[in-house]
Amino acid sequence: MRLANRIVVPAMVTRLAGEDGRVTDELRARYLRFAKGRPGLIVIEAMSVHGGKSGPLLRLSADEFIADQADLVQRMKDLAPELKVVPQIIHFLKIARSGWRQKPADLSHADIRAIVAQYGAAAERARRCGYDGVELHMAHAYTVSSFLSRLNQRPDEYGRSLENRMRLMTEILVEVRARAGADFPVGVRYDGEECIKNGYTLQDSRLIAVRIAQLGAAWISISAGGKFEDAVAKPGVPIYPYTGYSGDRCMPPASYPDGANLYLAEGIKAHLVAEGWTTPVVATGKIRTPELAESVLQSGQADLVGMARAMLADPDWAVKVASGRADHLVRCVYGNVCKNLDENFRKVVCYLWPKGALNAPESSDAAPPSWKHDGVLHGRESAGRIHLTWDEATDAEGVYGYEIYRADGGAEFDHVTSVKGTSFVDKGVVGGVAYRYFVRAYDYAGNRSARSSELGIVLAPFSAASLPRTEGA
Amino acid sequence: MRLANRIVVPAMVTRLAGEDGRVTDELRARYLRFAKGRPGLIVIEAMSVHGGKSGPLLRLSADEFIADQADLVQRMKDLAPELKVVPQIIHFLKIARSGWRQKPADLSHADIRAIVAQYGAAAERARRCGYDGVELHMAHAYTVSSFLSRLNQRPDEYGRSLENRMRLMTEILVEVRARAGADFPVGVRYDGEECIKNGYTLQDSRLIAVRIAQLGAAWISISAGGKFEDAVAKPGVPIYPYTGYSGDRCMPPASYPDGANLYLAEGIKAHLVAEGWTTPVVATGKIRTPELAESVLQSGQADLVGMARAMLADPDWAVKVASGRADHLVRCVYGNVCKNLDENFRKVVCYLWPKGALNAPESSDAAPPSWKHDGVLHGRESAGRIHLTWDEATDAEGVYGYEIYRADGGAEFDHVTSVKGTSFVDKGVVGGVAYRYFVRAYDYAGNRSARSSELGIVLAPFSAASLPRTEGA
Repeated sequence: MRLANRIVVPAMVTRLAGEDGRVTDELRARYLRFAKGRPGLIVIEAMSVHGGKSGPLLRLSADEFIADQADLVQRMKDLAPELKVVPQIIHFLKIARSGWRQKPADLSHADIRAIVAQYGAAAERARRCGYDGVELHMAHAYTVSSFLSRLNQRPDEYGRSLENRMRLMTEILVEVRARAGADFPVGVRYDGEECIKNGYTLQDSRLIAVRIAQLGAAWISISAGGKFEDAVAKPGVPIYPYTGYSGDRCMPPASYPDGANLYLAEGIKAHLVAEGWTTPVVATGKIRTPELAESVLQSGQADLVGMARAMLADPDWAVKVASGRADHLVRCVYGNVCKNLDENFRKVVCYLWPKGALNAPESSDAAPPSWKHDGVLHGRESAGRIHLTWDEATDAEGVYGYEIYRADGGAEFDHVTSVKGTSFVDKGVVGGVAYRYFVRAYDYAGNRSARSSELGIVLAPFSAASLPRTEGA
Repeated sequence: MRLANRIVVPAMVTRLAGEDGRVTDELRARYLRFAKGRPGLIVIEAMSVHGGKSGPLLRLSADEFIADQADLVQRMKDLAPELKVVPQIIHFLKIARSGWRQKPADLSHADIRAIVAQYGAAAERARRCGYDGVELHMAHAYTVSSFLSRLNQRPDEYGRSLENRMRLMTEILVEVRARAGADFPVGVRYDGEECIKNGYTLQDSRLIAVRIAQLGAAWISISAGGKFEDAVAKPGVPIYPYTGYSGDRCMPPASYPDGANLYLAEGIKAHLVAEGWTTPVVATGKIRTPELAESVLQSGQADLVGMARAMLADPDWAVKVASGRADHLVRCVYGNVCKNLDENFRKVVCYLWPKGALNAPESSDAAPPSWKHDGVLHGRESAGRIHLTWDEATDAEGVYGYEIYRADGGAEFDHVTSVKGTSFVDKGVVGGVAYRYFVRAYDYAGNRSARSSELGIVLAPFSAASLPRTEGA
């Protein structure tokens, strides 16, 4: 499989499929929107190999699902001929509102044989749909990941030792390659680290990567966490595996630094290279800037860069960066509104999009927004935070939002976050450091207004004198 | 403060102090043993500033504790004149067997004033003891860390914003420097990342480091996790903050790669440098080999290397490495027996030490152990694991244990772990990779026997043919 570029849209749940597992108009529109942005590879959201009921989730569990998806692939290719498209296929264990959930040890050998066969049959169908390959979902809280888990203490040949924990994964990969054909590219997405107590870490995930490479996978995509074990239970609702710490690690929110999970892809890639394998590795997890993406590739930390939330915020990421218009990117703020919508069984959209929109807006408008008055930025300190307000901007097609930029001390300006309104409270500041701010408005096409006025502000610096007097002990 | 080398023994609980907070013979012996190993800096285990009852925990909460500790410092210096010694001082909130625990929001302003004053008074006492400085414990599940936490939503000026969350830490640092004198070196140990859901990450810890530097700290020591929020409750026992995922991150067990938390010290150091601060940073967390320690220093990831468990296993780490006898190191296996002993309110010793020993053995024996027979290593595969057995070794002073070395594929031999007996089951192996093993016996002085015979073994490689046949779906 030859990609036009090294940007990957990883599988992202949309909740736009039909309850019957079919492609809907809304789902089709979402993927055509991604296709227009010309990434190298789009992984269509996880679809079940076994057809278990699970709300609006795509299925590839029977031949009846082929026609719809063949049509979707064809339309995406018509729009972007160089684009490669693969589905992610998944098997998941049963969960109940009572809190009960099925575990690896509950499966009989016949159950396991059926799962292996279902993966194989779904991969074969993926090929018949016209997909360029298939990605096997072996990450997070689902079946294969639960077998890979260091917590899998199944007493038979599918549990305890690493080799046994990898057996289901191995059997599936072998079956998929046999059924879909050795020339059909098969990728695997799995956790570089479970991020739970007694879970596996890079020590094991490096070895799992070797096995995946041994079995001839075409790519290895690294995720993290997203497990049931530390999920926060809500009474009466099936447990959702992204609500605990491992859920944060899976989709690092704004409180995490960029590239928070990069060390995982890096450690796995380095081990593969040391063992003589060239299988390409996809890094994901809060990668958003072209600078970071480029550095990941140049330094050899990974071979491909996956961006889920950044692509949801701006599906044109790849085409804008490739055409020298990185300054027109709509930047994800990692507020995880998308994650929360999924968690609450609602259609997944981006907080930054205009109200009611099911996709990122498209516009060829070239005129940037302008400030209604003179773009003055005001600020004040209160309770250790900096409160900013600014003038409204105006634009022919509509103002999309405002970007807040901050320079700490003598450093360069950096994008802090984006908001829709004309005020922002910055909680990530320390007294004694000189901060400078400016704000820019941007429109649907990503055109930026002139900078607002620049504001310098120093929170009360701490010194012995400024502190309340303490009595001696 | 000028150190003889960049090796730090971080504060480690021993449970060897008296219930009355006094220095016991056993505790004194432990620290004299550390002193003999000639690290640059020893941080004596956390001692309370407030004298709350908490089992065998040292105290510096009143003048009556000065004499004992002055004597301890003097003895350590007599033994190792270049050594620097500081105490770590701690305040902790109340916990009850019922599961209740005091939280930041429960403290009145008078309580907070008292804590600040207690820290100041304890630091002044540290100076009177003859310590070279003092380290403030602001990590893990304790009072200041709980204020620093992103979960601290106290509604007044001590909660919510980062500046407010840092207020208690700031007041304590100012008070300590005022009371102990500006020329008395004060270090701070805190979490680079909380490692809990909604906890802070490098984004905040970089800024906390700036505040610590602003206040003139002499060093910044980086830990991680160790929080109450994800601790595993045991009925009828006060909750122990190292039992959850964040506890693993605090003291990474064998399942973690070496240097698992290095990225934290590295990120903090880089931010300090960018902001113009030269405050030295101590990195900790499963650093055990001289190669890794040297690389941390050479690459500028940190200025000092802290090793707790590695020093417990071999207090002579620094002196052996400095004298070119790194091949005599007794290597920690990160089985966390020491951690479990603390968790179960028992005296903390190392699993590797001879049965009943309260300290690592000392020996000037120069004769290495020898194999009783011809040192043959046997191995077989079972259930995806490699089972090794070997001949017994013999030594004039006693065999301490056996080291297992493994080479994966074409790579170099690496120390896997050490055991006391003559067998080992390796679970961290994958089929299809060629492994080679050898074993060495070592004695109390760290002399190694000749290598056992070398054993090559390949777990059944996975191929389609070797797998059970799957029926079509």
